[in-house]
Amino acid sequence: MKKFAAREVEEANGTSYPPEFAKAVAGRHYRRLSVAAGLDQFGVNLVRLEPGAWSSQRHWHSDEDEFVIIQSGEAVLVTEEGEMTMQVGDCAGFPAGVEDAHHLINKSDEDCVFLVVGSRSDSDACDYPDIDLKALPGRYSGVGGFTRKDGSHY
Amino acid sequence: MKKFAAREVEEANGTSYPPEFAKAVAGRHYRRLSVAAGLDQFGVNLVRLEPGAWSSQRHWHSDEDEFVIIQSGEAVLVTEEGEMTMQVGDCAGFPAGVEDAHHLINKSDEDCVFLVVGSRSDSDACDYPDIDLKALPGRYSGVGGFTRKDGSHY
Repeated sequence: MKKFAAREVEEANGTSYPPEFAKAVAGRHYRRLSVAAGLDQFGVNLVRLEPGAWSSQRHWHSDEDEFVIIQSGEAVLVTEEGEMTMQVGDCAGFPAGVEDAHHLINKSDEDCVFLVVGSRSDSDACDYPDIDLKALPGRYSGVGGFTRKDGSHY
Repeated sequence: MKKFAAREVEEANGTSYPPEFAKAVAGRHYRRLSVAAGLDQFGVNLVRLEPGAWSSQRHWHSDEDEFVIIQSGEAVLVTEEGEMTMQVGDCAGFPAGVEDAHHLINKSDEDCVFLVVGSRSDSDACDYPDIDLKALPGRYSGVGGFTRKDGSHY
């Protein structure tokens, strides 16, 4: 395994959210660093949020731990307890199964870049308390996907 | 879960290496960010290497993926293929079971700070090809530990 520069990893911008929930993450760009490094036991992404962009819809994971650390700029962390601004070197962690839905919003005028680390558990499901959306288990084996809260497909 | 600043997490400096192998990591300091965040599915440590310090003895993991990204300063990555200098934003990954032993050495005159992410697998063992050392499975359940290559204890 050789070193590589994070900036040389291609930036992706896609989302598998249903169209009505995709606009909020249109300004989210991510480099899959751990994939570039040939790893599959956890995920490390370098995420760049344009001004106004959200990191995701606000969610919590049933089975996966999640960790973020700000690399440049600032973003607002939104949880069940409200909002707090995160700046360079600030960290936050979201243990699996804790129903404290979270996301980051770039409310500044500059890009915000953060690293996010997540487990890789095919049993993981996500709940999105603000919207009529849930993510089913099986994300990595390809059988998962998004449905409404009642299980109906978009 | 609240945000916290990485710099506010206590810096540790210990090692469980046998004394003859501990000197190389005497200038290695680490902040257990993921532990501070209440996570246990993977480890994220912010490591500071003083000039001359090693990140570890050169090793490879049987069952754990490992990922590093340089945050400030520079360090020399040593693998089976030789040495390469890593600078800010440079990444490297070490997939579980790949026998390419690796470590970082700070050969500069300034501190080097990097993030390291690792899986948490109690079945993991480590081999140290340069020295008479191996790490047994059971590191997280407390039954593992270091022995000589022939299995005898230090």
